[in-house]
Amino acid sequence: MPKDEVSVNASLLMRAGFVDKLFAGVYTLLPLGLRVMTKIENIVRAQMNAALGQEVLMPALHPRDNWDATARWDAMDVLFKLKDSADKEYALGATHEEIITPLAQKFLISYQDLPRSIYQIQTKFRNEPRAKSGLLRGREFRMKDLYSFHADEADLDQYYETMKGVYFQVFKQVGLGGITHITFASGGAFSKYSHEFQTITSAGEDTIYVCAACQVAVNREIISELKSVCPECGGTELLEHRAIEVGNIFKLGTRFSGAFDFRYTDERGALRPVVMGCYGIGITRLLGAIVEVHHDGRGIVWPAAVAPMSVHLVSLAREAADVRQADEIYGALARAGIEVLYDDRQAVRAGEKFADSDLFGLPLRVVVSAKTLESQSVELKRRGREEAILAPIGNLLTAVTQELAG
Amino acid sequence: MPKDEVSVNASLLMRAGFVDKLFAGVYTLLPLGLRVMTKIENIVRAQMNAALGQEVLMPALHPRDNWDATARWDAMDVLFKLKDSADKEYALGATHEEIITPLAQKFLISYQDLPRSIYQIQTKFRNEPRAKSGLLRGREFRMKDLYSFHADEADLDQYYETMKGVYFQVFKQVGLGGITHITFASGGAFSKYSHEFQTITSAGEDTIYVCAACQVAVNREIISELKSVCPECGGTELLEHRAIEVGNIFKLGTRFSGAFDFRYTDERGALRPVVMGCYGIGITRLLGAIVEVHHDGRGIVWPAAVAPMSVHLVSLAREAADVRQADEIYGALARAGIEVLYDDRQAVRAGEKFADSDLFGLPLRVVVSAKTLESQSVELKRRGREEAILAPIGNLLTAVTQELAG
Repeated sequence: MPKDEVSVNASLLMRAGFVDKLFAGVYTLLPLGLRVMTKIENIVRAQMNAALGQEVLMPALHPRDNWDATARWDAMDVLFKLKDSADKEYALGATHEEIITPLAQKFLISYQDLPRSIYQIQTKFRNEPRAKSGLLRGREFRMKDLYSFHADEADLDQYYETMKGVYFQVFKQVGLGGITHITFASGGAFSKYSHEFQTITSAGEDTIYVCAACQVAVNREIISELKSVCPECGGTELLEHRAIEVGNIFKLGTRFSGAFDFRYTDERGALRPVVMGCYGIGITRLLGAIVEVHHDGRGIVWPAAVAPMSVHLVSLAREAADVRQADEIYGALARAGIEVLYDDRQAVRAGEKFADSDLFGLPLRVVVSAKTLESQSVELKRRGREEAILAPIGNLLTAVTQELAG
Repeated sequence: MPKDEVSVNASLLMRAGFVDKLFAGVYTLLPLGLRVMTKIENIVRAQMNAALGQEVLMPALHPRDNWDATARWDAMDVLFKLKDSADKEYALGATHEEIITPLAQKFLISYQDLPRSIYQIQTKFRNEPRAKSGLLRGREFRMKDLYSFHADEADLDQYYETMKGVYFQVFKQVGLGGITHITFASGGAFSKYSHEFQTITSAGEDTIYVCAACQVAVNREIISELKSVCPECGGTELLEHRAIEVGNIFKLGTRFSGAFDFRYTDERGALRPVVMGCYGIGITRLLGAIVEVHHDGRGIVWPAAVAPMSVHLVSLAREAADVRQADEIYGALARAGIEVLYDDRQAVRAGEKFADSDLFGLPLRVVVSAKTLESQSVELKRRGREEAILAPIGNLLTAVTQELAG
């Protein structure tokens, strides 16, 4: 592990072999890390589909023209820029308003085509000078970005409120429920405030102030402007926390539709500007945030829904007959459709195997050894609990299923 | 559709709303196009997993150092290059030997760790000056690349033969069986030949010579060197065809392990160089190739396994009661788990709906109209066949399932 890796998330994910660091802010997802990311993506995807989002995949290479149209080619300081062999200029996609707006313009012609929500789960690039927080601040990272298109502000407002609920569902499902707060942040020309979703953890780079009365938060940027009064309920007891921004939602109004002259035909045949919203979730940042929140002194403690596998089968068997029984147990679990990681290394001591198992942090550890086999049993221990139980092999699938559900 | 779009694949995919062109060689995948790509990816993924490949996801941003180590920073003319805010140089991943080799070096230490296969399905970037063939030649495109690591050349040779069979499976499953030929191409320092998989179609940019005796082909590059004799069976009747390269396999030998001094410890404790192979499939190119092969004058004719949906339900119902029945049929198909695209547009004429349906090219068209409902029936017609049949609504699911299977 490189000496400059100070963040807990990257340190644990690298030690456990979930990711490999190529350079600051850029990581390879190794097989177990990719499994976690895919699970997070599928949770997000299901919620976006439920919110009637249509999934697309936009390019990462953006022509300069698109960014000139919104005057962000120079204004956005994290844009990676490059040229092709004909000296034509491109930006690497740091966000996709510049691509989705002219794209939607081709298809959303009439009021009958609205509202519409389009999203993607895709790699973003940001020329980030301080990429020191592991997967929390990437220069190349995975993101879900959804853009909504509306006939008027009232329709945007309604969808925006729906998305607040959808976002809480996502964070609850990935194991960050209860500690993720909707947070007032500065808005733009079209809305006084935007909203961030901030997950409380000491590793957070942000500071938020959570209202003791209603649990809504305010970010540091606007706390003094609000004179330390909760804009949601008027509460005045605001508690300071470190937090990670795991998502944000923003009313764009006509900022981008205006730049591209994106208008639709209304019921009376008149041309009116499309009103837009955008809704982001940092997928790899979420992966890092989950590790920051769910770990202990021994390693990661994956929430069940995003664990790369459910069961860590640790075999301490040495004799051929015992090894055969361990292999049979692996087969029985796998055939039952349970995702199982099998540690059948012969040359590694029990203590090292247990340490690895705690580091990997799968929800349930199943140990097979000469000793457990004496009583035709295996040992079950849930990650994060101290006590283990012995379960008869004849009752293995039921016991494992119960422990995983419990 | 832009006037410069001459390729059949891009033209049909754009007219049918499967993709949108951002600029030459760079496309957005729209919802139906993304569904096709995902199906192709999952077919490829299943085959790579069956060949014991472990899936990872490597970065697109590559530090210049990695490309200097193999002397390809200047030698590979399609590399997109860029700098960060500290003037550090990067390439966008055009291929990943420069990343996978030092990555594998961290984990594959001993002969016991070999052989190993690692793959990813990922976006690649190539600064391609002539991107005129739609999805066949992208500047940003999706690719599956697998890299294998071996203790010696004999082990590589064995795996290489296995992969030939795996590749034929992939091309058969996506609907390109029988017309995709393994094709001798020039090798490198470590192997006399590499192999391409070439799919015969008039739209192909390549020329190959297929042996009438054994169906193995030779590409144009080496045909004169071989004096027009098939290197597989000695046959001399070689038939010229236009073809698209949809995959390739290559024995890398120690070309890259040597550059990074990647060695493993053998059984006797000696250090020996790791021997490598690489195996690519262009996912988006495959999407384009499938359309080039499977279309007619009216539109695309998707092979069932990669069709974005199975059924195109076209409603011509106008009366409220008929519309309700069409909606019920949609619900019944959807609840049965059949992927169905529902055209319930009221303002569009029947002729236009049928033309759209042929253009989209889903395997089975189901038409509901006042006329079919008179006899409590729907009309079923398989894409690519002229005749339609009437099926009683009471027997709908059975009839649809039969037609899809047949």
